[in-house]
Amino acid sequence: MYLECTRGVKMEKLKEKIIQEGTVLSENVLKVDRFLNHQIDPNLMLAIGEEFAERFKEFNINKILTLESSGIAPAVMTGLQMKVPVIFARKRKSLTMVGNLLTAKVFSFTKQEENEISVADKFLAKEDNVLIIDDFLANGQAALALANIVEQAGASVAGIGIVIEKSFQEGSKLLKEKGYHVESLARIQSMENGVISFL
Amino acid sequence: MYLECTRGVKMEKLKEKIIQEGTVLSENVLKVDRFLNHQIDPNLMLAIGEEFAERFKEFNINKILTLESSGIAPAVMTGLQMKVPVIFARKRKSLTMVGNLLTAKVFSFTKQEENEISVADKFLAKEDNVLIIDDFLANGQAALALANIVEQAGASVAGIGIVIEKSFQEGSKLLKEKGYHVESLARIQSMENGVISFL
Repeated sequence: MYLECTRGVKMEKLKEKIIQEGTVLSENVLKVDRFLNHQIDPNLMLAIGEEFAERFKEFNINKILTLESSGIAPAVMTGLQMKVPVIFARKRKSLTMVGNLLTAKVFSFTKQEENEISVADKFLAKEDNVLIIDDFLANGQAALALANIVEQAGASVAGIGIVIEKSFQEGSKLLKEKGYHVESLARIQSMENGVISFL
Repeated sequence: MYLECTRGVKMEKLKEKIIQEGTVLSENVLKVDRFLNHQIDPNLMLAIGEEFAERFKEFNINKILTLESSGIAPAVMTGLQMKVPVIFARKRKSLTMVGNLLTAKVFSFTKQEENEISVADKFLAKEDNVLIIDDFLANGQAALALANIVEQAGASVAGIGIVIEKSFQEGSKLLKEKGYHVESLARIQSMENGVISFL
């Protein structure tokens, strides 16, 4: 009953949330900690998962790859809808992370540091057709690192699903130039003077 | 249809997964990266969320608190069922994490280091009745740090929901001595000689 009710939630709901609950910290930095990357709205995540599943339904996806931590909630809801497992790349290795790893470097402009992200190689195989999911697309560095890991495994990147794209930054253009199919649920054209406008 | 089917999945499914896909790395360390903390089985997470929602349904919970990264998937599925928001404490601060923070120290035996975990204080208020969710209960340090943060805010810890409890370690006893209501979905009695036995 509850789950059915959410099926009517369109991505307009996401844009409303961004307008009502997002905070523009600078012309480049949008804070969405009220519903996406610190506090999470599970019902909105389900709607996001349904939308990604719909947009990528013809892509024969058998695995989802995301990056900890903020990608996990939307990725898991997408995996639930698509009935496929979700892998999250790790920014730091734990003691239990033994065995062969696929790694890539990604520079985070938010944190002003370079991280090496890792995925255990046993989770990606040549025959996999992988959907990459992330919360934000800004400079595209995280998505490119995830795509690099998929390709190191000899697997295919079926597409890239982004919750919030800052279209005025380089990432979207960069990913499309490299031939990736990108689907962004909310595309922000500008945040000048603290006002968010969508494409 | 798909979601309805999962309602029959009992926590026996979790125990089966632990037996079939878990790896005992030492007498204390269990690796469950195939379905919980690196690769995630979204359908199992939904079943876990349903089970926590059932066990805590009389507790008037209005918020869930977990710790990045492995707590996020079970916590979000629980939040979906209980229709409440989920907050994940952060191990590292991002540039957008401005404003007042509630912090607590937690020593990770897996990573052999002390982390400071943080929650923006705007997300916890005196009137909140909080369910803490985490993937593992071993020494109880993470759960205690999360409880400490809830109590710093003047809010109440309604209970603690754990996916896998290693009952032979101190955490469970410690939390119960402090008066917390703990619900663990799989309780491991021992992992001697690489054999997992449940309580």
